Amino acid sequence: MSIQFLESGDIASPLGFLAAGVTAGFKRSGAPDMALLKSEAPCRVAGAFTSNLFAAAPVVYDRDLLARGGAVRAVAINSGIANACTGERGMRDARRSAEVVGAILGVAPDEVLVSSTGRIGDYLPMELIEKGAKLGAARLSRQGGLDAARAIMTTDTKVKTFAVRLDIGGKAVTLGGMTKGAGMICPRLRPATPQQATMLAYVTTDACIADDALRAALAASIDLSFNRITVDGDTSTNDTFLVLANGLARNPEIQADTPEFQSFAEALATLAGRLAKEMVKDGEGVSRFVEVNVTGAKTDADARRCAEAIAKSELCKTAWFGADPNWGRILCAAGYSGISFDPDRVSLDLQHTPTVRNGQDAGVKTEAELEELCRAPEVIIDLDLGAGDGHFTEWTCDLTYEYVKINADYHT
Amino acid sequence: MSIQFLESGDIASPLGFLAAGVTAGFKRSGAPDMALLKSEAPCRVAGAFTSNLFAAAPVVYDRDLLARGGAVRAVAINSGIANACTGERGMRDARRSAEVVGAILGVAPDEVLVSSTGRIGDYLPMELIEKGAKLGAARLSRQGGLDAARAIMTTDTKVKTFAVRLDIGGKAVTLGGMTKGAGMICPRLRPATPQQATMLAYVTTDACIADDALRAALAASIDLSFNRITVDGDTSTNDTFLVLANGLARNPEIQADTPEFQSFAEALATLAGRLAKEMVKDGEGVSRFVEVNVTGAKTDADARRCAEAIAKSELCKTAWFGADPNWGRILCAAGYSGISFDPDRVSLDLQHTPTVRNGQDAGVKTEAELEELCRAPEVIIDLDLGAGDGHFTEWTCDLTYEYVKINADYHT
Repeated sequence: MSIQFLESGDIASPLGFLAAGVTAGFKRSGAPDMALLKSEAPCRVAGAFTSNLFAAAPVVYDRDLLARGGAVRAVAINSGIANACTGERGMRDARRSAEVVGAILGVAPDEVLVSSTGRIGDYLPMELIEKGAKLGAARLSRQGGLDAARAIMTTDTKVKTFAVRLDIGGKAVTLGGMTKGAGMICPRLRPATPQQATMLAYVTTDACIADDALRAALAASIDLSFNRITVDGDTSTNDTFLVLANGLARNPEIQADTPEFQSFAEALATLAGRLAKEMVKDGEGVSRFVEVNVTGAKTDADARRCAEAIAKSELCKTAWFGADPNWGRILCAAGYSGISFDPDRVSLDLQHTPTVRNGQDAGVKTEAELEELCRAPEVIIDLDLGAGDGHFTEWTCDLTYEYVKINADYHT
Repeated sequence: MSIQFLESGDIASPLGFLAAGVTAGFKRSGAPDMALLKSEAPCRVAGAFTSNLFAAAPVVYDRDLLARGGAVRAVAINSGIANACTGERGMRDARRSAEVVGAILGVAPDEVLVSSTGRIGDYLPMELIEKGAKLGAARLSRQGGLDAARAIMTTDTKVKTFAVRLDIGGKAVTLGGMTKGAGMICPRLRPATPQQATMLAYVTTDACIADDALRAALAASIDLSFNRITVDGDTSTNDTFLVLANGLARNPEIQADTPEFQSFAEALATLAGRLAKEMVKDGEGVSRFVEVNVTGAKTDADARRCAEAIAKSELCKTAWFGADPNWGRILCAAGYSGISFDPDRVSLDLQHTPTVRNGQDAGVKTEAELEELCRAPEVIIDLDLGAGDGHFTEWTCDLTYEYVKINADYHT
């Protein structure tokens, strides 16, 4: 089943979805800061949310709404204020936002999901939610996908929205996605319903798909996308990934464990993977994207722990910024990751070039040659621990002056 | 029992210890890069070494030597090359270094401990060890402590050596210490003998103390010093802490579980704590020292996990650089640390000023006022999780442009 990226595809590419992005006033800069998504038909919905104990009010609200299991019609997203660590008032504000948006869009409050991103600890001004909802409602359109994707950005430098299409049962099914980063990025999402970044990510689809199949596809997609990325190792209070399916493609309903399910799940994972990768590439201050492939671990969990230690290491990340092929720092991070393996059996390739064999310099390339290879905008590291069949891939980035600047100077 | 820091005290302050620091040629810069310590009398010794799986050859060598339990007379330390990830040849080189140094100092090879710090993966040139040992042997003196402390430095900007004195059984007992950082600093030492930072730290003492008491004092000291610090979260392959006791103070031998032992252990912990704190203050690019006190956790282990997550968070560390009192980032890190507590019961003080109560802004000070408090060179954070009696203190620092510069440009 072939999955095609659409040229200029966006979150509003699937049938029946409308989008808008407007300036409500949450950001001091005057940049767009509120997005609305609306479906012309009721949507089945699946979601995954941050595993941070300090889950923000909109995360708690959405999680509860999904647990109740009803259909959804709209999503309202503000950027600039996270509505996190805001206690009872934060919860009231999240609920009130859904009511205000629902009333303006002509849908029930419990058909509206809400998301927030921005500074932790500040309260959400209700008058801005109302202003944004009114402005957005007037602008909702099939052409509004780019505006919506722009309005959810904070320190992102690029709009990140894509769409893919595939054939299911003779019908064209489309999935549209959008996401934002760019700091506090180390999403470790937990599927919600029947149980939980500030990454925010949304996928719309016109697929007709059973509830459990939609949840299963989402659960399968996160480990292949958002849960394998890090920018700075900080798991946000607001990370949210929502998939809304309105069925307007009129395909035969996709059931779990069928070939059609596999196709849909693959399409969702492909789109989510693309969104996740682009999020890292547009991470705060990022100049170089790095893929860390760990193989030969005792278990996949060990491989993940090892890949994450490398992907989060300040010494590895600053070396990557300098195009320094300092494999010693990579091995060092593997060595303190807390898993067990034999250091003398470890191999490492930089850009597919043998660099370490049996835990020592492979002596194949000079340091200058390796440094040249590491100047590429994307660096691939293959680390084989020689201890088993466990494997994991983590997507990460370098640590730059610009990252420090953005986060030492941060005021919305 | 009062413990006094000596004015201008150093590693050679205890009776019978000689020290030297020379340029052997390991560093391209021509800076001093080899230190020797020698005791006029045989020493009892205790050590703790890195928990990194890629333990460097000198770590493996010293660990084995300590396990055999004999007396020690000398320590040879080179900076510039770590002799880590160097396989069989690395082990041969470590052994050969001890032989060369022993022959030149007139002591047996198995009375010599060796340490290395610097770039991982490079072999140790034996001719430089010999050159350094000869130069050093000619310079060994009671005045050589400062030179030795300077010769073990890599990216350190300050010499870190101190000495303390206390009375034990009517005799003045002196402990001298020196250490170096300044990057790849997150030592998680394990005591060696009967079992296991690139921080290197050495303490000499003229105390007469039983073997098991010396080991117990070392084991107790590390959790109050080196094992509670981080600069960049990277646990080195070479971290080493050695305590040598030559007995020349002629005090009655200190036995475990006695008041004299408590005094000695307190003195050792005080000296090690000072060395550890100074290491963080002189960490790579550090502009601000931060103490993270976590209380009210369910267990001490939970408190430690929480304090470490905050101490290692890139977002917290860059905020501290900018004197940004962004408590949301601190709570966020606590929330993803993997421990459990009730977010609504959390309190946080910045510089002893109530900042968060019940998981929300305490509203006591304006952000500008808090920012002013955070401009101090030392910032104290008190986080109470409200979940129990577990507590832990971690010493950390900010993440600055200079850290990125040092580590993106790193070539010895």
